[in-house]
Amino acid sequence: MAAYVQDVIMLLGDSLTQGGVEPYGFSQRLSATYVRKLDVLNRGFGGYTTEWAIPVFEQIFAKQHEQQHVPKVRLLTIFYGANDAALAPSPQHVELPTYKSNLTKLIHMVTSPSSQWYSPETKIILIAPPPVNPVQWAEHIGGVSDRKFEVTKLYAEAVKEVGATEGLPVVDSWTGIWDKTGHDQSKLPTYLSDGLHLTPAGYEVIYDGIMKIITETYPELHPDKIRFVVKAWDEIDYKNHRQSLVIGA
Amino acid sequence: MAAYVQDVIMLLGDSLTQGGVEPYGFSQRLSATYVRKLDVLNRGFGGYTTEWAIPVFEQIFAKQHEQQHVPKVRLLTIFYGANDAALAPSPQHVELPTYKSNLTKLIHMVTSPSSQWYSPETKIILIAPPPVNPVQWAEHIGGVSDRKFEVTKLYAEAVKEVGATEGLPVVDSWTGIWDKTGHDQSKLPTYLSDGLHLTPAGYEVIYDGIMKIITETYPELHPDKIRFVVKAWDEIDYKNHRQSLVIGA
Repeated sequence: MAAYVQDVIMLLGDSLTQGGVEPYGFSQRLSATYVRKLDVLNRGFGGYTTEWAIPVFEQIFAKQHEQQHVPKVRLLTIFYGANDAALAPSPQHVELPTYKSNLTKLIHMVTSPSSQWYSPETKIILIAPPPVNPVQWAEHIGGVSDRKFEVTKLYAEAVKEVGATEGLPVVDSWTGIWDKTGHDQSKLPTYLSDGLHLTPAGYEVIYDGIMKIITETYPELHPDKIRFVVKAWDEIDYKNHRQSLVIGA
Repeated sequence: MAAYVQDVIMLLGDSLTQGGVEPYGFSQRLSATYVRKLDVLNRGFGGYTTEWAIPVFEQIFAKQHEQQHVPKVRLLTIFYGANDAALAPSPQHVELPTYKSNLTKLIHMVTSPSSQWYSPETKIILIAPPPVNPVQWAEHIGGVSDRKFEVTKLYAEAVKEVGATEGLPVVDSWTGIWDKTGHDQSKLPTYLSDGLHLTPAGYEVIYDGIMKIITETYPELHPDKIRFVVKAWDEIDYKNHRQSLVIGA
């Protein structure tokens, strides 16, 4: 059994979050940045949309009455849209207004005092989906692309609208990556491995965006502000190590 | 708050475990291999020895009466020796017999039915320290090396002895890496970044050793035998998604 000693960062999303565990993914980078400070819980589920995320999030985020026994989620990233933006009749397709209201529901679960999942110490960062490259994606799936560049763009813009309404910071990976290409679709493969998923360079845009928001909006979560839970070895009182190693003392 | 939904792999050790969160480290690789199946909790503390590990482990591994609320540790790796093998008068130095008895204490905390931390569902893998390269290490610290090749070798052999006595599998990274060099010390920098810590190639020996033991000794922990906690998106009943997404149903 693992005792609860470290608070956590929870990454909620689809395959773009799940794939963040790979080398140079944003989940891996956060794990390295916050090692010995916060555990990173990857809750990325490939293929998922906001519609399917809601019943899952109800089960993976603790309710208030369970909170005393479980790690505090200090930071929650919410990163959907790559699948919601799939074109009908894909089972993944979520209408744009529903996508926005689903994102809002996920946020209010955590931020609304009347919610069973209310968690005022959880800071939230929204992440907009990156651009999609239908040329690469069609090649990858060996058929007609079920994503369109202009459609995914609308879903990315919707995240910024939800962020503005809710007063939450957004990592606009769509604009970040698109600007890096110089608005040249042929440069997208630097950031997208198959037209939909991110390369290490694409993940760098996400990670850098998260760290910039932490620095500017949630400075108490900056890694420099969070101490090692288990102290540095050269701070141990070697003659009295057992007492010196009491966590939190 | 993060609800307890996934069991965990806990990696207990020193900087060689802590550094495993970097790209291609064994912690990162396990996170990727077990994504959506088991969370990886990195409990590597740079500079730590078995002597300091015991009071820390007493706090980070849940006691029996706490077990109902916390994730089960399905796999525990114990990886010390790189610092215990530091030469006296280093404060890190732990005498060889003490090192062995400390490792045994850590193991018995989990395996002994009379222990407060008894956890029969936790499988244990011991990891022996890799070879040290005093030439690289002296250069890195800018002084006389406080580690010796032949001394660290004794600590690695001690892990195998403890494993044999306790009936536990050992990743013998010392022999694994030394054999890969063709017993040529000048080849060690392929596996050691500074003479003490591991490169991605060094971590590959650790990761491959862990996966080999899982396959042969703990097959129930093989990733192919553990289902996604949250089901694959193409297994969702789209017409009845809320009921279909009940975890564990």
